[in-house]
Amino acid sequence: MNDFASLKKIIEEHNSFLLSTHVNPDADAIGSEIGFYLILKKLGKKIRIINHSATPYNLEFLDPEKVVEKFDENTHSSTVNESEVFVLLDLNQGNRIASMENAFRSFKGLKVCIDHHQDTENVFDYVFGGTQYSATAEIIYDFIEETKIVELDHSIALQLYAGIMTDTGSFRFDRTSPRIHHIMAELLGKGVSPTDVYDKIYDQFKFGRVKLLGEALSTIQLDDSGNIAYMIVTKKDLDNTGASEADVDGFVNYCLTIRGVKIGILFYELKDGIKISFRSKGEIQVNKLAKEFKGGGHTNASGIRLFNTTIDDVKDQIISAAKRYL
Amino acid sequence: MNDFASLKKIIEEHNSFLLSTHVNPDADAIGSEIGFYLILKKLGKKIRIINHSATPYNLEFLDPEKVVEKFDENTHSSTVNESEVFVLLDLNQGNRIASMENAFRSFKGLKVCIDHHQDTENVFDYVFGGTQYSATAEIIYDFIEETKIVELDHSIALQLYAGIMTDTGSFRFDRTSPRIHHIMAELLGKGVSPTDVYDKIYDQFKFGRVKLLGEALSTIQLDDSGNIAYMIVTKKDLDNTGASEADVDGFVNYCLTIRGVKIGILFYELKDGIKISFRSKGEIQVNKLAKEFKGGGHTNASGIRLFNTTIDDVKDQIISAAKRYL
Repeated sequence: MNDFASLKKIIEEHNSFLLSTHVNPDADAIGSEIGFYLILKKLGKKIRIINHSATPYNLEFLDPEKVVEKFDENTHSSTVNESEVFVLLDLNQGNRIASMENAFRSFKGLKVCIDHHQDTENVFDYVFGGTQYSATAEIIYDFIEETKIVELDHSIALQLYAGIMTDTGSFRFDRTSPRIHHIMAELLGKGVSPTDVYDKIYDQFKFGRVKLLGEALSTIQLDDSGNIAYMIVTKKDLDNTGASEADVDGFVNYCLTIRGVKIGILFYELKDGIKISFRSKGEIQVNKLAKEFKGGGHTNASGIRLFNTTIDDVKDQIISAAKRYL
Repeated sequence: MNDFASLKKIIEEHNSFLLSTHVNPDADAIGSEIGFYLILKKLGKKIRIINHSATPYNLEFLDPEKVVEKFDENTHSSTVNESEVFVLLDLNQGNRIASMENAFRSFKGLKVCIDHHQDTENVFDYVFGGTQYSATAEIIYDFIEETKIVELDHSIALQLYAGIMTDTGSFRFDRTSPRIHHIMAELLGKGVSPTDVYDKIYDQFKFGRVKLLGEALSTIQLDDSGNIAYMIVTKKDLDNTGASEADVDGFVNYCLTIRGVKIGILFYELKDGIKISFRSKGEIQVNKLAKEFKGGGHTNASGIRLFNTTIDDVKDQIISAAKRYL
């Protein structure tokens, strides 16, 4: 049970807020931040949103007034210290804000977390949300609904829709409850266009990204059980297609679209080593698999980075280890 | 306004029903058919489902009792004639049932159409539905809700969820209204698992299909405006990957995921000619483009078949024609 009355009280009793989210923010990170920003703005508060990462180009439509700033230690140090409340949204561990971590840890005011991930770091004065939520944006929705702190208008609805739609995988992941659909009905009722939001977030790939996906899919192999599929992306592929590391995001999921496949693996060549991404279906815990190699992540999505080695060196070993999790 | 009371009356006043749907049935076709079948079954009616096409393997989970039969003119002719009511679901033109067309046209009993496409052929005694519906399954839902003809149970809910989820593109196409989400909330409340349905329908691709997608994506080109993307699938690609024509379904949509692209074109090599698929965004009417070459389809999804020609022969002409629709 969330004590949203306390969150409302925190807002009422303070005047200046600093909001931030995790590195490489997704639509739930940006949507939750700007959704919360819009609540505070309606209440006449002083607010800054400062992130470690720039907003990805496909999410810029969520920030038409360009209120999100990219952290710069020199210019932003005083801003951080002048704020009374530091709110982290869609993350729960200090190191997930990267270059802002020191500023956060040394912050003297109130530290608030609004998030739906597990294993919250014991560093916050207040934590709102919980793993029962499909998205951080759903927490913001509940907060508004329960406290009626502001009216839910089209601008806020757009942010929350974007966050929930993406974090539920278009309403198909586990925590997609009847309630999620009721909330979506209400948000669409505020004038949000699902076609438009989907197009803006997902159908804005660079040409090179689609070519690179073609190359990556051409490399897919199955292990002898047919339950593991793996793909390879090399530096050469990136050079040939003009794509970048961020473009590879999501490729590994294609492994799981093959009948019978329960674990998908992407081997990605770095300048000085390799990155390996794991995805799994159902109960298969690839976070434990990643942990064997000092990586980490979620039950069904995890990864590792290995330095001074090559894909050829480790591929067989990784696939053998993965088999133990089938 | 649908006169669902009439549909209820038709059911009450007749005893034997024959249901069918269009060639290459999708989840809305199968889900609507079996959903309607389950209603009739609860009411103790005699029902057969006979389709021109076999049920695609990824939709077999919708028919665990294997009630759907594949049409065989020799064995089924008497079955057809013994039925009192012939119901076509998710199509509205006689030729869309292919080998069953003659049996349908010469059918002496009541001809009923339940569908959400435009341009209904003037051949039915009764038509229910309309283009305001996102899916034929939504019509079935409305029919149950309005007439309370049977109780909506888990089995029916599963069929309707599959139909609506797929025909709305996971709740992103134009006709995804707040009401759709309210319906989804109710269907999930009957125990439907969105994760499970999505996995069964979409994540069951043959290995060769994923390889073929890789080949196809590698061929993508942009026209000089950057607004048209086109891809090519040759017979050789199919042979090399072990994929089939049905596996190419959906490939053309990848063209529209590229930033700036408004028309996507797939050139597909047939034994004796070529197939061309068009997809577009928003107001761009590719059905008119297809019509120029004697093809047809919907505003945003259409296609043509050309015989005794090659992709090289027509490619430039097709792209030039497409440019006029930008």
